[in-house]
Amino acid sequence: MSSVSRAQIRAAIDAKTKPVGALGRLEWLAETIAVQQQTLSPVTSRCLLTIFAGDHGITQSGVSAYPQIVTRQMVDNFLAGGAAANVIAKSVGADLHVVDAGIAGPRIQHSNLIDRHIAAGTANSLEQPAMTTEQCETALRSGAGLANDAPHDTLCFGEMGIGNTSSASLIAAKITGCDVADLVGRGTGIDDAQLAQKTNVLRKAAARTGPILKAGIALADYGGFEIAMMCGAMMRAAQNAKLVLVDGFIASTAALCAVHIDPSCRGSLVFAHRSAEQGHSFVLEHLKARPLLDLEMRLGEGTGALLAWPLVQAAGAMLRDMASFDSAGVAGKS
Amino acid sequence: MSSVSRAQIRAAIDAKTKPVGALGRLEWLAETIAVQQQTLSPVTSRCLLTIFAGDHGITQSGVSAYPQIVTRQMVDNFLAGGAAANVIAKSVGADLHVVDAGIAGPRIQHSNLIDRHIAAGTANSLEQPAMTTEQCETALRSGAGLANDAPHDTLCFGEMGIGNTSSASLIAAKITGCDVADLVGRGTGIDDAQLAQKTNVLRKAAARTGPILKAGIALADYGGFEIAMMCGAMMRAAQNAKLVLVDGFIASTAALCAVHIDPSCRGSLVFAHRSAEQGHSFVLEHLKARPLLDLEMRLGEGTGALLAWPLVQAAGAMLRDMASFDSAGVAGKS
Repeated sequence: MSSVSRAQIRAAIDAKTKPVGALGRLEWLAETIAVQQQTLSPVTSRCLLTIFAGDHGITQSGVSAYPQIVTRQMVDNFLAGGAAANVIAKSVGADLHVVDAGIAGPRIQHSNLIDRHIAAGTANSLEQPAMTTEQCETALRSGAGLANDAPHDTLCFGEMGIGNTSSASLIAAKITGCDVADLVGRGTGIDDAQLAQKTNVLRKAAARTGPILKAGIALADYGGFEIAMMCGAMMRAAQNAKLVLVDGFIASTAALCAVHIDPSCRGSLVFAHRSAEQGHSFVLEHLKARPLLDLEMRLGEGTGALLAWPLVQAAGAMLRDMASFDSAGVAGKS
Repeated sequence: MSSVSRAQIRAAIDAKTKPVGALGRLEWLAETIAVQQQTLSPVTSRCLLTIFAGDHGITQSGVSAYPQIVTRQMVDNFLAGGAAANVIAKSVGADLHVVDAGIAGPRIQHSNLIDRHIAAGTANSLEQPAMTTEQCETALRSGAGLANDAPHDTLCFGEMGIGNTSSASLIAAKITGCDVADLVGRGTGIDDAQLAQKTNVLRKAAARTGPILKAGIALADYGGFEIAMMCGAMMRAAQNAKLVLVDGFIASTAALCAVHIDPSCRGSLVFAHRSAEQGHSFVLEHLKARPLLDLEMRLGEGTGALLAWPLVQAAGAMLRDMASFDSAGVAGKS
């Protein structure tokens, strides 16, 4: 691999026909992509959103506004092309894959559904570990395998799983050692009484283990097959020098796990969107991450990541195709 | 025109398969577009960026980091396809037109340059009105005519004009009645001494007229042929029920004039990007406008507006194409 230094990349950006720094975070984004791909002509032509869907045993304890069956109904919706992720992916020109990471109920039969089903939902982490060590390792490997297979230069990972803001809150609390109550938000839209109930359940679930856990242990203990698969996928994508656009709270929690397990993946992670969900800002701060967008969205499904894809394309095009002061014959500062 | 109420639009958005409000500002954007087009199936398929270029007599008084000749050199760069606006327009799939609104020096001959040349730059507003009333009216009409000719559903207006942050600061100060010093920024990148000089020149220029001026008078007095053309274009675009994506400080100052001249155009203006240029936040506050993006850019050329075009497309697609809870058979809140 030919090597290009950060200084060379910076000099190339500064030579473009614009005042130094005038493209702000687009310049930072171009620099990030160029460092990662080790070239002044980065490829930003193909983007894939992979949505991992899985169910959460903790929904049995009443933490969510929607019934668990919505996970599978939304997977049907993805497969039929009617969800927000579908229409936004099409709008921004990204491909979309849907993975059964462990949906509750009878197996969904559909030729476009990628089968990485681990179990019909995790166990209830209020009472026991959400998954076994073996299940967690399988999930990490499945995610890595899917990231490995993608020919795209940019990968987005989304999720669908009723109850997964609860699981993500517990995982993030255990990795950072904070009180889970600081991370609890309204998810898909619970009211004040439900929020108190959710906080109560999560505090009890958190009390089941020690105050700080290693990322892999927290992941297995508090679960989300889809969160573990995203984590594995992010690590492998980074190893393969792919850009990862990190979505909202759940995806950022998967990224938190990924960075704790393999710190070298941090440089490949671009945080796309600041979610309106409570815990997200906390996780972002821990990762010293500043998202590109803040559109007050809190849907998940990778929708925030998708909306940053046009910015990645624009940043790549800027570095590849913009003229320099020299090449365009434009005068510099007087 | 068939009429659709805001309540009907809101109900259609709330019926989509997502928690109510979970797409945040994308929902607001979809609502804005639907209200403007008066339909639940808005068209968001074609976007045009028109860049107006003009020179400013006030550059003779030393307010800018770059020499005046950069305006024409950048126009050559636009015509050759090498500027930031070109590569970003191509990246997001927008068309690009370039207009000579009044560039200094010999006329530029190029088949792709739209000729609306008023004069070889404005007069120096430190000493006299930047333009005559007739010149200002011609500029407003030229802008309106160009907006009228565009078959696109969404219009972005950009500018190129060395010295135009000075003219925009003076116009905005005169319309709002504030001290011009509160609006002065570093433009393309002047240092502290140059900033003091710029502030001094602008205060003297401001002292030439009364503290508050009507928008049309402020526009003629402190100029920018390109700012006046943008203003005329924005008003006509709004009258034609086109969506206007408003770029940074200069474009927002044109929008400020437009809203003061014709308040009915406000609903068609979507503010795309919060510029890092000092005066922009002031103008936005005056217009009660909250931009979609904040990428710390301060280039102009319509680059901020272009980056919001994918958001407009996504918002339109969401309203047009997303399934409802009913149509997809997804359960609601329990």
